[in-house]
Amino acid sequence: MSTSASGRPQRVDARHNRGRILDVAEEVFGKGGRSASTEEVARLAEVGIATVFRHFPTKAALVEAVLVRRFDRLREHAEGLLGSADAGAAFFDFFSHLVADAATKIAIGEALHDLTGDTDGDAATASLGLRRAFGALLRRAQEAGAVRDDAELPEVYALLVATSRAASQPHVDAEVRARMLAIVFDGLAPR
Amino acid sequence: MSTSASGRPQRVDARHNRGRILDVAEEVFGKGGRSASTEEVARLAEVGIATVFRHFPTKAALVEAVLVRRFDRLREHAEGLLGSADAGAAFFDFFSHLVADAATKIAIGEALHDLTGDTDGDAATASLGLRRAFGALLRRAQEAGAVRDDAELPEVYALLVATSRAASQPHVDAEVRARMLAIVFDGLAPR
Repeated sequence: MSTSASGRPQRVDARHNRGRILDVAEEVFGKGGRSASTEEVARLAEVGIATVFRHFPTKAALVEAVLVRRFDRLREHAEGLLGSADAGAAFFDFFSHLVADAATKIAIGEALHDLTGDTDGDAATASLGLRRAFGALLRRAQEAGAVRDDAELPEVYALLVATSRAASQPHVDAEVRARMLAIVFDGLAPR
Repeated sequence: MSTSASGRPQRVDARHNRGRILDVAEEVFGKGGRSASTEEVARLAEVGIATVFRHFPTKAALVEAVLVRRFDRLREHAEGLLGSADAGAAFFDFFSHLVADAATKIAIGEALHDLTGDTDGDAATASLGLRRAFGALLRRAQEAGAVRDDAELPEVYALLVATSRAASQPHVDAEVRARMLAIVFDGLAPR
């Protein structure tokens, strides 16, 4: 294997560059920079534009990769909570975490939607994985008696998405978000 | 006053045309036809394009007028319910009505956002009027003991907007919408 100027194997450099590009792209598109260019991402990541295009042939591919990584991390977070002793706390904490984190994810999703109209790419698959992991957390919380039995995943997931979107609105600050979630969580409590 | 070919006074015709154009525009933009043109609205309303431009100099002015009329109607509906004997039913029925109605309103709002980036035009003022009327319904329901005392307008309105947006998603059908609202309404019930 040849080595680069830094003395690291090229393959390690490539992996490092890919991660660095994704970090920068997540930051740029997460801040609502829908119109940001791939050139700008390359500049901020301090790599050449050719390097970006080698990893991500189009801007859509780049934005999708950012979104997939984000969904995958959230799914892993949810799966990690499946083993926790307090299934109710695991469910409600994860719900709150996701809603607090939503503003960024929604901005990236909108950037992707602008580019592709999305719906069935890798990001949709990753989003489905997250939904499944969330469903498993819900079932465990119901089995533990922390969430009402008659709540099903479609409406609970709809509420998760709904409150996430609401939380990304500029006039919904952390306090309003917490009080909004308190109402939803009371509604999810066993009758 | 001169009369038109139909024998009606021209001012009555003008009012009639304005309403007709708004009806058609509401239908077209409410179905998510963000890219629909003013020409298309004129054709469907069976009026000349000059007539449309006389009433609405720009497409943005037309879309905004549609949205203002919609917000005003919802506000009038809410104000009409302020006199009803069952303040709890009035609040929850209006909440459900608005969420069921949301898909159309959101599509129109997005069409306006595309054109103007909105935020402080007539539509925003009309939207504020609706929020105030909804706040009055909430207070009455709280005074009647049908809604918990500690819920404040910012979070309840955030939930109204959130569930409205969720209800406009294609995978959220009427049944899921009803179950989603049942959870929120239980959360809003007095402790």
